[in-house]
Amino acid sequence: MAYSLSIEQLIKQFSRLPGIGYKTAERLVIFLLDQPKEKFEEFITAQNQALSKAKKCGSCFNYSENDSCPICADSRRDKKIICVVAKPQDIIALEKTHAFPGVYYVLGAVMSPLNGDGPEKLKIQALLEKIKNNQAAEIILALNPDMDGETTSLYLIKLLKQFPGLKISRLARGLPMGADLEYADEITLENALKGRQRL
Amino acid sequence: MAYSLSIEQLIKQFSRLPGIGYKTAERLVIFLLDQPKEKFEEFITAQNQALSKAKKCGSCFNYSENDSCPICADSRRDKKIICVVAKPQDIIALEKTHAFPGVYYVLGAVMSPLNGDGPEKLKIQALLEKIKNNQAAEIILALNPDMDGETTSLYLIKLLKQFPGLKISRLARGLPMGADLEYADEITLENALKGRQRL
Repeated sequence: MAYSLSIEQLIKQFSRLPGIGYKTAERLVIFLLDQPKEKFEEFITAQNQALSKAKKCGSCFNYSENDSCPICADSRRDKKIICVVAKPQDIIALEKTHAFPGVYYVLGAVMSPLNGDGPEKLKIQALLEKIKNNQAAEIILALNPDMDGETTSLYLIKLLKQFPGLKISRLARGLPMGADLEYADEITLENALKGRQRL
Repeated sequence: MAYSLSIEQLIKQFSRLPGIGYKTAERLVIFLLDQPKEKFEEFITAQNQALSKAKKCGSCFNYSENDSCPICADSRRDKKIICVVAKPQDIIALEKTHAFPGVYYVLGAVMSPLNGDGPEKLKIQALLEKIKNNQAAEIILALNPDMDGETTSLYLIKLLKQFPGLKISRLARGLPMGADLEYADEITLENALKGRQRL
C-alpha cells in the first residue's frame, strides 16, 4: 500500500531533483496538493513559462529570454574582459558586487578527475572563438577554489597560452570578510600570506 | 541584474515550498533547465496528472484517485477501529508495519497553541459522524508525541467521551528500537518506565 499512482509518480519525479530525497519529495508533493488548486496551477504555469521562454545566450551561455542576454547586449560592458564561470548562479553572485565591467562565459561544468569527468564536458571551443572575436585582453578564471575548480583552471590556462598577450587571472585567495584568523584553515592562511597586499 | 523574468518567477514559486530557501530554489530551477527539455516536460506532466487526478477519499480524507481510497474500499479492513492521524504521510508510515487492521482518518492539521492554531483547523465533525456511522469500537490517536500532538489528543479525548463504550487509545511511548539507554532523554525514559510491559 503506497500512494495512488499519480502521486507516487510525482514523488518520484521530485526525488530526482538535487538534494531532494524521498521523504522531502513526499512532503513537497503533499504540500502542493494540500494548498488551494489555483496555487498548484500557478506553480505549474511558472514552470511552463520558464520551459518555453528560457534559452541560452548565444555568446555567454547564461540563461536568457532573448538570443543575447542583457549583459552581452549591454554596450557599456567591456567585451574585452571575459570572466569564466562554471554555472549561471555564479554570474548572479558576481553581478551583485557591481564590481565587474566585462562580460561572462558559462563553462557549463568543471572537470572532476575523481568522478571521471574530463574536459569534454566543458564548452571550450566557443570560448576560444569568443576570445578571438572579441579580441579579448583579459580572461578571469572565476572557478571554485577546490580540487575540481583548480584542475579546470590549470587545463584552461594551458589552452589559453596560445593567445599571446592575453592576460589570464583568477579570483584572489585569502581571508573572507568577517573571518577569524584563529579559526582560518592552513591553506586559506597560506594563500593570504602569499597574496599579501602592499599598503 | 538578476535572472530573466520567467526564471526569477519560477525561483520564487519554488522558494514557497516548505524547507526550500532562495538558494535551493535557484539550484533546483537551474537543474530543471539544464537537463534535456523532455525531462522537464515529464516533470510538469507528472504534476498535471497529480493535480487533475488526486482527490480526497470521502471517508478518511487521505489522497486517492477515486471517491474512496483503497483502504476504505477494502472489505477486509475493520471499519470499527479508526486510527486518527494528522497527515497522509502518517498513513503510509503505519501501513508499512502491516500491523493495523482498521481504517484511518486524516485530521488535516493539529492544534498549535503557540502559533494560535485552535481546533477550527481540524476536520472534527466528519470524524464524529464516521464514529457514529461505523459504530466504531476503538479510536487510536496516532499523533506526534510533541506539544501540538498532545494538545490535539487531549482536545479530541474530551470530545470523544460523548460516545459511551468507545475505547480510546494512543500509540505507546517508550524506547525506539536500536536506542541506547544511556543517551535516551528523561521524558522518553520516564515513559518507558511508566509503560513497562509485564513479561
